[in-house]
Amino acid sequence: MNEDNARFCLLAGLILLYLLCGAAIFSALEHPFELRARRLWKQQLDNFTQRYRVNLGALHTLLRQYEEANGAGIRVDALRPRWDFAGAFYFVGTVVSTIGFGMTTPATIAGKIFLIFYGLMGCAATILFFNLFLERIITMLAYIMRWCHERRLRCAGVGVVSSREESSGEEDSLEDWKPSVYYVMLILCVASVVIACSASTLYSPMENWSYVDSLYFCFVAFSTIGFGDLVSSQRQQYESQEAYRLGNCIFILMGVCCIYSLFNVISIIIKQTLTWIVGKLVCSGRYPSCSCSRPGQKRFKRNTVQPISSRCPAGRPCYADGSVETVCDSETDAGAVADGVFAGRRLSGEMISVNEFTMSNKVSLALLQKQLSETAHQGPRQSYRHQNGFSGGVGALAIMNNRLQETSVDR
Amino acid sequence: MNEDNARFCLLAGLILLYLLCGAAIFSALEHPFELRARRLWKQQLDNFTQRYRVNLGALHTLLRQYEEANGAGIRVDALRPRWDFAGAFYFVGTVVSTIGFGMTTPATIAGKIFLIFYGLMGCAATILFFNLFLERIITMLAYIMRWCHERRLRCAGVGVVSSREESSGEEDSLEDWKPSVYYVMLILCVASVVIACSASTLYSPMENWSYVDSLYFCFVAFSTIGFGDLVSSQRQQYESQEAYRLGNCIFILMGVCCIYSLFNVISIIIKQTLTWIVGKLVCSGRYPSCSCSRPGQKRFKRNTVQPISSRCPAGRPCYADGSVETVCDSETDAGAVADGVFAGRRLSGEMISVNEFTMSNKVSLALLQKQLSETAHQGPRQSYRHQNGFSGGVGALAIMNNRLQETSVDR
Repeated sequence: MNEDNARFCLLAGLILLYLLCGAAIFSALEHPFELRARRLWKQQLDNFTQRYRVNLGALHTLLRQYEEANGAGIRVDALRPRWDFAGAFYFVGTVVSTIGFGMTTPATIAGKIFLIFYGLMGCAATILFFNLFLERIITMLAYIMRWCHERRLRCAGVGVVSSREESSGEEDSLEDWKPSVYYVMLILCVASVVIACSASTLYSPMENWSYVDSLYFCFVAFSTIGFGDLVSSQRQQYESQEAYRLGNCIFILMGVCCIYSLFNVISIIIKQTLTWIVGKLVCSGRYPSCSCSRPGQKRFKRNTVQPISSRCPAGRPCYADGSVETVCDSETDAGAVADGVFAGRRLSGEMISVNEFTMSNKVSLALLQKQLSETAHQGPRQSYRHQNGFSGGVGALAIMNNRLQETSVDR
Repeated sequence: MNEDNARFCLLAGLILLYLLCGAAIFSALEHPFELRARRLWKQQLDNFTQRYRVNLGALHTLLRQYEEANGAGIRVDALRPRWDFAGAFYFVGTVVSTIGFGMTTPATIAGKIFLIFYGLMGCAATILFFNLFLERIITMLAYIMRWCHERRLRCAGVGVVSSREESSGEEDSLEDWKPSVYYVMLILCVASVVIACSASTLYSPMENWSYVDSLYFCFVAFSTIGFGDLVSSQRQQYESQEAYRLGNCIFILMGVCCIYSLFNVISIIIKQTLTWIVGKLVCSGRYPSCSCSRPGQKRFKRNTVQPISSRCPAGRPCYADGSVETVCDSETDAGAVADGVFAGRRLSGEMISVNEFTMSNKVSLALLQKQLSETAHQGPRQSYRHQNGFSGGVGALAIMNNRLQETSVDR
């Protein structure tokens, strides 16, 4: 099993563990309430049948009919029509964004079949939209953070900047400055919280929800989970209805885009952590034949094309410089683009020639990026930073930074 | 507005149009049924109140209480307990996968707050899991398709293979062979249909759903929309219950992974189409100053580092070789890894030095990939293929192929 499969299995195992823990906690939190609700309903039903001398069977039939009517969007308190144009628009919005509240669902066979084909294209287009949005938001953040960094450098003294410029031999060392993934996560977190709080401030009075309920609704909607226990804009009448519906749409759109970006940035951090764990496990003796114990070794000569497989047994995880920081990180992240700065990457013996070519070029590229700001460096891999020759220019963090830098170019 | 922003806006506009059309169609399909359901429920309620002489107000109160009880998972016909461990596990599964059926939702404030933090990490981890799965499935498909291609070449005559090998100067020309995105989409489509049909064959008798309903449930669950109008494994008792629950979990997991991959592959095709449309629009005269009209021009000298900005006004869309095929496609696609074969890509004047470096290297890399199989070439950009110097090795399709080739290396 190579290192990437190990990481995949580790992730699957950790998610399973996470699910088991979550199930236990939710069970403990919610089970008492469920029992209470069940007792309460039994009591309410008994009261009603005794008071009005209704046959329980007939009442059950009525309640079953009510359940069916519920499915068609009918409630005791009048709700907005489900399938007028505005309602249908809200419905298709929840389909393509995969929120799927379920407050409105197709009931006819034609509607169900149409939904399958409609959703297939719609969801794919929306995924693309989210990814393009993600790229744009990262671009914007990178610009802003670069500007702040630039200003900080200027305040610290122009001499620092110019000496860095000279050492890199380029016009502007800041061209290679890339923001940290942790800062980006922090900013997205703050943005998400701001959007959720603003939205809750709107929802709470309009829907008569408590503030916590509103926040809960915001998270469930923005993360596209969409339980449907709380759904905004369902009543027949609101004050300034059109404005509220528009605001609702805009908040959901902004929230979904923001939380999607946040999820993807967090997933990259999770991946770095997994890579680090796997690297630790591998280096702690599972594969004693690999080069983990040689901290001074460098994988690549600068600017030369040198196949990696000649140094490392094919199909074997093998790390350079005793550090997972050099483990390449070129996998599919929705929020990230880069086929990675290859270094210390084991590749299976076949189908690697072109990759080796890219890899070598990229490593030389990585060396150009040495002046990566110290401030951009934080996280679990920090302690390894000075152990190898590519300090600051190679590794998962640098790749992430590279990704951010990649996207910071206006495309 | 540059070409990427144009594409983004075009996509947003098209999605809006798609939503409006969908809303109109769903409204037409479902509105009559809603009216019928409303009439039916009114009639049922009238019958009941007349027959049992129940005060309508009291009945409404009971129905409101029933709605609340519904929220806690109570139905007339006994459902499985919501918050025992198995139920809570199903619940957290729908949370982290963002399906969010809503058959079970936290009712306590503690549960709601915990959900926000639990979901944040869980959804991010699951997105990573889906992306790693996507990579693995594409890897597998690329291997299988390469094997088939290899066999076809052998059947056609070994001479063809060896001459290709010689022209590429590498050990095996098939190392550079990459499967077509359209084939990958087709295979994922077939796989999704097979999984959905198999799952429906299981659900249909177990849940007493019609086959169309089962297929509809499969799509809604697998695409993580999760309306919750139909939810599997909710009754208290099933034949061979444990096996059914396990099968349900496995089918949902497989289905979600497969449809996620399918969505991402479709989103790449949508993006290619958008790029093609934008390219068409740009070349048809909006930017007459660009080099569209010079079909023989080449952007890059082979293997040389040459800044693109020297030929093209900064911040302006500019295409080489009169072809959108040379438009770089290095954006964030969840299902794809590659910062792209840069060619004919306009970049804003700043922050491009390192990118130019990569770009030039990548173009030379792209030229190495000339022997890309003809069979892998299909799609909207086909007619442009022979107009430029990078035929088969550059452009959106080639990038997609490159991505597939990238992922076909066992990492």
